[in-house]
Amino acid sequence: MTEHPTALYPTALGAASKDEITLLGHDLARDVMGEVSFGELAFWLATQRRPTPGETRVFEAVLAALADHGYTPTAIISRLALLSAPDSVQGALAAGLLAGGSRFLGVTEDCGRFLHAVLVENTIPTDDAGWDALALETVTAQRAAGRFVPGLGHHVHKDGDPRTPRLMEIATEEGLFGPHLALFAAIGRVHPQVLGKTLPLNGAGVCGAALADLGLPLELLRAFALLARTAGLIGQLAEELRHPVANDIFLSVDRNNRPTDPDPYKPADL
Amino acid sequence: MTEHPTALYPTALGAASKDEITLLGHDLARDVMGEVSFGELAFWLATQRRPTPGETRVFEAVLAALADHGYTPTAIISRLALLSAPDSVQGALAAGLLAGGSRFLGVTEDCGRFLHAVLVENTIPTDDAGWDALALETVTAQRAAGRFVPGLGHHVHKDGDPRTPRLMEIATEEGLFGPHLALFAAIGRVHPQVLGKTLPLNGAGVCGAALADLGLPLELLRAFALLARTAGLIGQLAEELRHPVANDIFLSVDRNNRPTDPDPYKPADL
Amino acid sequence: MTEHPTALYPTALGAASKDEITLLGHDLARDVMGEVSFGELAFWLATQRRPTPGETRVFEAVLAALADHGYTPTAIISRLALLSAPDSVQGALAAGLLAGGSRFLGVTEDCGRFLHAVLVENTIPTDDAGWDALALETVTAQRAAGRFVPGLGHHVHKDGDPRTPRLMEIATEEGLFGPHLALFAAIGRVHPQVLGKTLPLNGAGVCGAALADLGLPLELLRAFALLARTAGLIGQLAEELRHPVANDIFLSVDRNNRPTDPDPYKPADL
Amino acid sequence: MTEHPTALYPTALGAASKDEITLLGHDLARDVMGEVSFGELAFWLATQRRPTPGETRVFEAVLAALADHGYTPTAIISRLALLSAPDSVQGALAAGLLAGGSRFLGVTEDCGRFLHAVLVENTIPTDDAGWDALALETVTAQRAAGRFVPGLGHHVHKDGDPRTPRLMEIATEEGLFGPHLALFAAIGRVHPQVLGKTLPLNGAGVCGAALADLGLPLELLRAFALLARTAGLIGQLAEELRHPVANDIFLSVDRNNRPTDPDPYKPADL
Repeated sequence: MTEHPTALYPTALGAASKDEITLLGHDLARDVMGEVSFGELAFWLATQRRPTPGETRVFEAVLAALADHGYTPTAIISRLALLSAPDSVQGALAAGLLAGGSRFLGVTEDCGRFLHAVLVENTIPTDDAGWDALALETVTAQRAAGRFVPGLGHHVHKDGDPRTPRLMEIATEEGLFGPHLALFAAIGRVHPQVLGKTLPLNGAGVCGAALADLGLPLELLRAFALLARTAGLIGQLAEELRHPVANDIFLSVDRNNRPTDPDPYKPADL
Repeated sequence: MTEHPTALYPTALGAASKDEITLLGHDLARDVMGEVSFGELAFWLATQRRPTPGETRVFEAVLAALADHGYTPTAIISRLALLSAPDSVQGALAAGLLAGGSRFLGVTEDCGRFLHAVLVENTIPTDDAGWDALALETVTAQRAAGRFVPGLGHHVHKDGDPRTPRLMEIATEEGLFGPHLALFAAIGRVHPQVLGKTLPLNGAGVCGAALADLGLPLELLRAFALLARTAGLIGQLAEELRHPVANDIFLSVDRNNRPTDPDPYKPADL
Repeated sequence: MTEHPTALYPTALGAASKDEITLLGHDLARDVMGEVSFGELAFWLATQRRPTPGETRVFEAVLAALADHGYTPTAIISRLALLSAPDSVQGALAAGLLAGGSRFLGVTEDCGRFLHAVLVENTIPTDDAGWDALALETVTAQRAAGRFVPGLGHHVHKDGDPRTPRLMEIATEEGLFGPHLALFAAIGRVHPQVLGKTLPLNGAGVCGAALADLGLPLELLRAFALLARTAGLIGQLAEELRHPVANDIFLSVDRNNRPTDPDPYKPADL
Repeated sequence: MTEHPTALYPTALGAASKDEITLLGHDLARDVMGEVSFGELAFWLATQRRPTPGETRVFEAVLAALADHGYTPTAIISRLALLSAPDSVQGALAAGLLAGGSRFLGVTEDCGRFLHAVLVENTIPTDDAGWDALALETVTAQRAAGRFVPGLGHHVHKDGDPRTPRLMEIATEEGLFGPHLALFAAIGRVHPQVLGKTLPLNGAGVCGAALADLGLPLELLRAFALLARTAGLIGQLAEELRHPVANDIFLSVDRNNRPTDPDPYKPADL
């Protein structure tokens, strides 16, 4: 027996007794399995409220937009990890997800948080002119501070990311085009006045805006990108098992190595 | 420029040009976003073929069955990792998935592979009597070899796991009750004759049978369990952010530690 | 053959030809194996310069100080991951390291970076009075900004962390008590004047100061804490294999779960 | 308070009270820091017994042999993960270690376990002729079973891996050339008689034999390879921070992608 009593651990997620399994207070077998789609369930688990069909559609559109972008670092890593440790599918998936950090998958979260921070500090506009004014002020302030606007710019889709208008269209169809998307769209309209050039609103950014409009927790926007990417990585691993490229990738690096002399590290002078 | 030319890397998954993004050969923005549910997309990515609505329903029922089981090691680990490294959601998810190995989430894969191995070595029965005979032979052989039958038995649901009949029902409704489920069901009927006691067919096992009947790659059955669990872990992290328990868990262990004398390791005598 | 030529990849670390293996420009078999201790090698790999015996001793004292602290989240996670996936030792180690983030193992890096930032912006004092003045200014500025001083305070060792004076002593013996340790020590002397209470200089903090004085890259101070912890986690896994506690930890949480009603998430009002 | 009392958790590793920190029953600050090298400590933590200087030297020679091999998958993965998530050094290290599985770093463990299994089932020979006979029987049996002998063969060092004779030499110098190394050496002598060609005894294999002769737990031989590799990966990350190649690696794959038509997966016919 313990010397220090431990706490009780409340949870509204999964629970099981001898004859019943519940999830979010519902009978898992009877009310969830076969009745709730996986995207709907993921939303529900994250918020403990069941989304509407429209919310589920926007949410799943975001997941589709972020699932796979070909040979990203996440994909390359998962394939290489499977090559090295073929017995550990969980290790290959986990390794890939670990590349889902601030640089590649982080824009979704950064954009959602950024838009939200602007919105909570300002009165919500009621018309396009109002949104444009707020966006102009926002972009101007970022530029003055020497900071980028998250979600603006793309290294490939220089004339526009096709996911952006499509996600806005879906959100509009479902009556879920909220203030985050409105501000993001206005940034798209006005930023050339400030920056002197036209940049695309990228797909990762619009996904962050849409997730924020869905009322999902800002701290977990990156997590939804990672959920989407988990499905993508399974696709990568499935393809790797049948049409392997990881060994070629490994050899392309290893064989092109060039031994150099050590370059002793010197810390900055004090 | 390289000294050793590298390979080209084919892929049918995501691809992007300046104006278009495709996924599995389809226009991502026009044909996938808003049109394809996330479960459907995950199936499609893994197999490079679009599932039917019935296949999607069975697949999503499996994902629902495996998404969250409360305070499993995966959930505890993710919560503790978030406590320690709150800035790295990807680390918390990855750490949790790393507990999805042979023991806790492995039954799904083990069961699917086991049933499949039996099926490829035998003529497929055409009636219940035939299935019972094959199941009897199978259970008898496992017992003779001192091995367990994957998917048989559960430490909580001793009188039956409610997910098992429900998933069989859903598969039947969709016309997807195939040979793996048939053999699994027959094992449920006949094993008491061999083992002398009645064990439940567990939920992880029936999920493996159903995934195998869907024609999904056996090497990746564990990966689907991990995909389901990723949604569950996001739920756990979302709850931890609002109703934290990880610090209490940590303290319940740390404060109940009991320092002992070292116990020097001795290898087996040769 | 590729359409886009790839780069060459320089490295001064490991290289192999048919008859030779080199590491950091040295013959691995002849000049490194049996000649270079592991701590020395780790320092050498990180800086591409061979440390002196004194530097190695301070570095290894830091690694010893950080290797294991009993049932930390890293240790609990590694044990739980081994319980769940006993076939994947790499997964158990990786999962544990993922808890080495900003909160638990991050102090070493935070403290080293903090002290360094102060030093680069000020003239280096030449006597204790000068250090005390700089420390006073530093602590005062942190307090005015509402920020903690990294490395100050400990939840257990309220009257002093025994590692702190010992590491300072070792650094002094080796002639490696440099400006980071000097500033840290001065913070220990003067902070009560500002904060109105006496806090201990903790072990994680002094390790960061010592690593910075060794001229190690600030971006990797956390990495050395993780290297130390890898050895500690192997100890945890070795003990778990012989004297298991992970299943008891798991059950202590699972059995003390308390199902609650869902608490639907509401985002902040706009 | 809990409804189900939890257990106490014994440990001989780290423990702390208000004024003291102990590790393995010793005062950490006084008896370990500055007194025990990191390799020695890692051995001690894993076995709960302090190694002799000779044991430490052999152990550290093994760690040096396995620390870094240039652009292995582990190194490539860590660098790519740092590129993607530069804020998470722990994620980059963990991702790299996840490639330390059965294929690349597994030989050390496989070889140690294999040799041990042979030794426990046979009388230990007392002279070279006896070792040769046992080795001949062992290689013959493996070949008859269609299995490889772990540790035999290397894709680069076809005429001999320079680490192998060196580690045997070091072990001999320290009086630690035990039965695992003896059997491994004999396999090197006799296998051409069975296989009809001469293969090198590789470095990963001889490391496994040496670790087994040191009496380290066989279940953790891979863990020591991972400890060595952690130091190597820190070297890789340090080099990446100053001489980055990860983005070039990423682009070399991404730009050489070749979109293909989907190849629908078909499961094996039943």
